[in-house]
Amino acid sequence: MKPSGVITLLTDFGLDDPFVGVMKGVIVSRFPDAKIFDLSHAVPPQQIELAALWLELSIPWFPAGTVHVVVVDPKVGSERAAVAYRAGDHLFVAPENGVCDRALARAGDVEARRLEPAELTDRAPSATFHGRDVFAPAAAELASGRRSFEELGRPHAFQPILVSPRANADSDGVSGEVVWVDRFGNLVTNVEARTLSELGSAAVVVRDRRCRMVETYASAAPGELIALVNSFDRLEIAVREGSAAELLGVTRGAPVRVTALRAP
Amino acid sequence: MKPSGVITLLTDFGLDDPFVGVMKGVIVSRFPDAKIFDLSHAVPPQQIELAALWLELSIPWFPAGTVHVVVVDPKVGSERAAVAYRAGDHLFVAPENGVCDRALARAGDVEARRLEPAELTDRAPSATFHGRDVFAPAAAELASGRRSFEELGRPHAFQPILVSPRANADSDGVSGEVVWVDRFGNLVTNVEARTLSELGSAAVVVRDRRCRMVETYASAAPGELIALVNSFDRLEIAVREGSAAELLGVTRGAPVRVTALRAP
Amino acid sequence: MKPSGVITLLTDFGLDDPFVGVMKGVIVSRFPDAKIFDLSHAVPPQQIELAALWLELSIPWFPAGTVHVVVVDPKVGSERAAVAYRAGDHLFVAPENGVCDRALARAGDVEARRLEPAELTDRAPSATFHGRDVFAPAAAELASGRRSFEELGRPHAFQPILVSPRANADSDGVSGEVVWVDRFGNLVTNVEARTLSELGSAAVVVRDRRCRMVETYASAAPGELIALVNSFDRLEIAVREGSAAELLGVTRGAPVRVTALRAP
Repeated sequence: MKPSGVITLLTDFGLDDPFVGVMKGVIVSRFPDAKIFDLSHAVPPQQIELAALWLELSIPWFPAGTVHVVVVDPKVGSERAAVAYRAGDHLFVAPENGVCDRALARAGDVEARRLEPAELTDRAPSATFHGRDVFAPAAAELASGRRSFEELGRPHAFQPILVSPRANADSDGVSGEVVWVDRFGNLVTNVEARTLSELGSAAVVVRDRRCRMVETYASAAPGELIALVNSFDRLEIAVREGSAAELLGVTRGAPVRVTALRAP
Repeated sequence: MKPSGVITLLTDFGLDDPFVGVMKGVIVSRFPDAKIFDLSHAVPPQQIELAALWLELSIPWFPAGTVHVVVVDPKVGSERAAVAYRAGDHLFVAPENGVCDRALARAGDVEARRLEPAELTDRAPSATFHGRDVFAPAAAELASGRRSFEELGRPHAFQPILVSPRANADSDGVSGEVVWVDRFGNLVTNVEARTLSELGSAAVVVRDRRCRMVETYASAAPGELIALVNSFDRLEIAVREGSAAELLGVTRGAPVRVTALRAP
Repeated sequence: MKPSGVITLLTDFGLDDPFVGVMKGVIVSRFPDAKIFDLSHAVPPQQIELAALWLELSIPWFPAGTVHVVVVDPKVGSERAAVAYRAGDHLFVAPENGVCDRALARAGDVEARRLEPAELTDRAPSATFHGRDVFAPAAAELASGRRSFEELGRPHAFQPILVSPRANADSDGVSGEVVWVDRFGNLVTNVEARTLSELGSAAVVVRDRRCRMVETYASAAPGELIALVNSFDRLEIAVREGSAAELLGVTRGAPVRVTALRAP
């Protein structure tokens, strides 16, 4: 796979401190033509699951040969491995903690290599900032083509780690949960569009409130509680010109029930 | 007009969620050499007027041939048109809701084209994320020169929509309002520098407090309430080394009165 | 020194308002191939010391020939000089208020030039936004190689201004303080790694709480209060999977005591 020169960054570092800027300095020092894009640096500290979801939903929109750097790394400095993955036509560098698992499962055909910190930095790698000392250099090597995936480390057995909350189908419908509350207070669930279409006509209930199924926010009345298939093909609960999270007092993890409606 | 390859983004998406990163992925997938700059993603959800002001004030600082992507889009998914504008030597893609009107009025000679979502994405366009499915692809087409403005859509009649609060001149002075409270608590008003110079010597009053007119923050005493012409040629109320917004308890929309002072 | 084409930005402007975007517009208008990276725009308004620390810690990670733009400028519009510095293999443009002093001291061999606003912008420079009207154009000139450091202004005597809180060694150990509370609530101190190694085995105490010295976060128990040498070679107080700032109720400026432990 030819690298595209594009590198994405997804971390829990925030943008206030200069951590992300320093990672970009390391990348551009090794690969001056890097095209670096931020996915998000607002993963709540160490919330691997939300980062895993965001990565899964984002990668289809980047070109083949993109290198995705993911640093949500509560166990930095421990024996947890640092790895590079190749899956579909994307590359990933991340701690081996499951944060890439959803994206890898979606891309398919996963191969892994184990990164050796000492082979990636000219200085002694720190014990606490592998984003700078391991993952940024590895991404620069891959995205610049200076080292191939095979040259980056020894083969490593890939084993999925992350157990994501899945929506469970039963005879009457599907039980899912809210997996992401976005800036607008929309509640993104783990119920996928294809599950909904299999159910046919369905009632969506969250916090004992039934949500009218619509196609788009604009078809609701202002303030109305609605459910729709969002732009990432997930069931989403929303309030037109308002916040569903606020209206319902709901956060990540809240259960959502979808019940099939059959002709009487 | 030759595109500069520069694309600016102005949205109400915030930087926490990966929406902006995904838009950049779509752009770089179509136009690998794009130079993408964020104007702001902190437009309060769906506040078209503030976005319109920021766009107007920002465009003069970008090179000719820049494409400005503006996505503040409360009616996404409705029948509101998606449009491209050409005005002066800048290009814009945005929902037709007035968000570009101030910038267009300033640039002059406006032409509009109507964008057809289905002609801009290879996948089915979503009903809820036109930033990704319509405006990002349109910007990439224009900025890369792959499609000209004329090729991007059918001619569309441009009609200004946004009615911005204008400062009103009367026999004694000008009544305006606060249109932007910046990070420092400075109160930017809709009273323009040229209006002030027409008035000559003037008293600026907000919340019954008179503000001393100065040339620059540094000529005030620490904590002093002042008024000055800011770097965007607007009357601004400020507190040296403090926050005027806090001191006065004032937010967007607060009235500001400027009274001409005549020799007795 | 050959410019690398890389420009970093460090300001107290925040990312909500379009100030930073406008600065980038000015840079790309003059230097279309600029590679612009944000160090941080979240310096608390006018906190020169924190900006100075972040700059010092960040510059080693950027390539030789990088131009660093620093705009934390409480005295903008006063007689304070605008200057360019060359030190080691880095370039800086900033107000002359000490904000670059720590980085300059670290890079060594400082030369300074005084910037004349009127020579840097085609328009009349504003009195309040030198980031846009002075520092962004100066950075673009330097980074593009259009003007050399020598051509940018007249020689200017460099005199350090910033008196940073230094850790003080005494016969029993070192008294330092917290100089940066990061996103994770880690407390970065002004006690340097080499000071610690000179002391040998030592006890670290903050707010009457002794912190166990470890090598990495991962070697602590969840919730445990620890001290370690961080990735920028500074003593840091942390809580595994928690916030030391919260646990201890500590902010910037809090004293930290390191006492040498000698064999009895």
